[in-house]
Amino acid sequence: MTTPVIILSRPQLGENIGAAARAMKNFGLSELRLVAPRSGWPNEKANHMAVGAVDILERAKLFGDASSALADLQFVVATTARERGVTKPVLTPLEVVRQLRNAVAQGTRCGILFGSERAGLDNDEVSLATSVVTIPTTGFSSINLGQSVMLLCYEWFRFEDETPAVRIDHGPVAKKATREEMFQLFAHLEDELLKDGFLYPPSKETPMIRNLRALFNRADMTDQEVRTLRGVIVALAKGKYRKKPPEGA
Amino acid sequence: MTTPVIILSRPQLGENIGAAARAMKNFGLSELRLVAPRSGWPNEKANHMAVGAVDILERAKLFGDASSALADLQFVVATTARERGVTKPVLTPLEVVRQLRNAVAQGTRCGILFGSERAGLDNDEVSLATSVVTIPTTGFSSINLGQSVMLLCYEWFRFEDETPAVRIDHGPVAKKATREEMFQLFAHLEDELLKDGFLYPPSKETPMIRNLRALFNRADMTDQEVRTLRGVIVALAKGKYRKKPPEGA
Repeated sequence: MTTPVIILSRPQLGENIGAAARAMKNFGLSELRLVAPRSGWPNEKANHMAVGAVDILERAKLFGDASSALADLQFVVATTARERGVTKPVLTPLEVVRQLRNAVAQGTRCGILFGSERAGLDNDEVSLATSVVTIPTTGFSSINLGQSVMLLCYEWFRFEDETPAVRIDHGPVAKKATREEMFQLFAHLEDELLKDGFLYPPSKETPMIRNLRALFNRADMTDQEVRTLRGVIVALAKGKYRKKPPEGA
Repeated sequence: MTTPVIILSRPQLGENIGAAARAMKNFGLSELRLVAPRSGWPNEKANHMAVGAVDILERAKLFGDASSALADLQFVVATTARERGVTKPVLTPLEVVRQLRNAVAQGTRCGILFGSERAGLDNDEVSLATSVVTIPTTGFSSINLGQSVMLLCYEWFRFEDETPAVRIDHGPVAKKATREEMFQLFAHLEDELLKDGFLYPPSKETPMIRNLRALFNRADMTDQEVRTLRGVIVALAKGKYRKKPPEGA
């Protein structure tokens, strides 16, 4: 599937061009266009900041003005933090990504246009775009060029990302414990505590056991952890027998 | 409402500390803690990068190690891109924010812990946290410290942000056109086109009119734009009468 083109208009700092490329690669975008970069092109600082995303910089295309950089595109969103006196839909990043995903799926050539560090896009550049996206912030709004590119690329990726919300990382070997393994742990612990007199008086035995079981259930343990805890119980119980007898009964 | 504390453990570059403060302020977080910043504290480069968020740096608290920086917190999420051999829930940024919002609403003191630029959090530091958050990326994963802080702060803000997905920015004066204003525009245009013979032959009149109306409806115009377009029609029609008569019938 094609992805939106990122167009940086009159970027001033190589660092931001590099940061943009790096952000793009993290989040699956690959086509970068540059309109009249102030410090010339190629740019050593851009390469340095791009780290492993230099390939995106090497394939970046250079244009003299925004209208030629956008000419072959069909749906272009302009990023701006400023209010404009012109009627244009202002989208949230989530909404713009929803529209871009939808457009790309229909074969529409899409782009996201970013302005220069100093002043953003001018009104003429905004007038070349289909709509405007503004990153919502608190009253304090100060997001630099590289960061804006990253937030939009992140939203693009995030929209269809299927990473589970919660993934229990069990490491390379361990598996989630079965109920039986947990029941054996409970039995082992409760047996030792009973011998120890910890579950006395009998009226406290049941609530105490339930509380301990709840705690271990909440911990959502692996088979390996059950074995470790059973070793802990053995070690503690052994220590108790080893030290207590000489002094106690 | 309180917000999560951002804790940077052994940050190396002042620029990243400043970028973190700036990201925090954009997205409504305010409490920053620093564990043994490598270049000392205060840091001129941090102040420079923070721009208008220097107040967050000035209020930042300094700690000697991660455990003292986390001591008063109750729910701490460690950010890491690496797989660990230890069983811990790995959350997406959205899920971590859902849990943090929920925890904060219940009065739980929360924090998000970030490691150093070079190697991230070490295993000991991760073991001090409740769970782990990993920013999902493509196979290429290279997000720096300042950017990671920004993405997490962005997710925090975004979760309860109520900015409408699409907002039509009408500028300071214009209002969305009423249907009647649109009907008058249609009538004006269609009348001129009829006089012009553009809607000929009659079999084409209705589909042509419907297509033109659909186009203007899609543009979702303001009252000001209706007036402008009616002026355009007058100007074009007048021009036609002004030039054509000498040559034509």
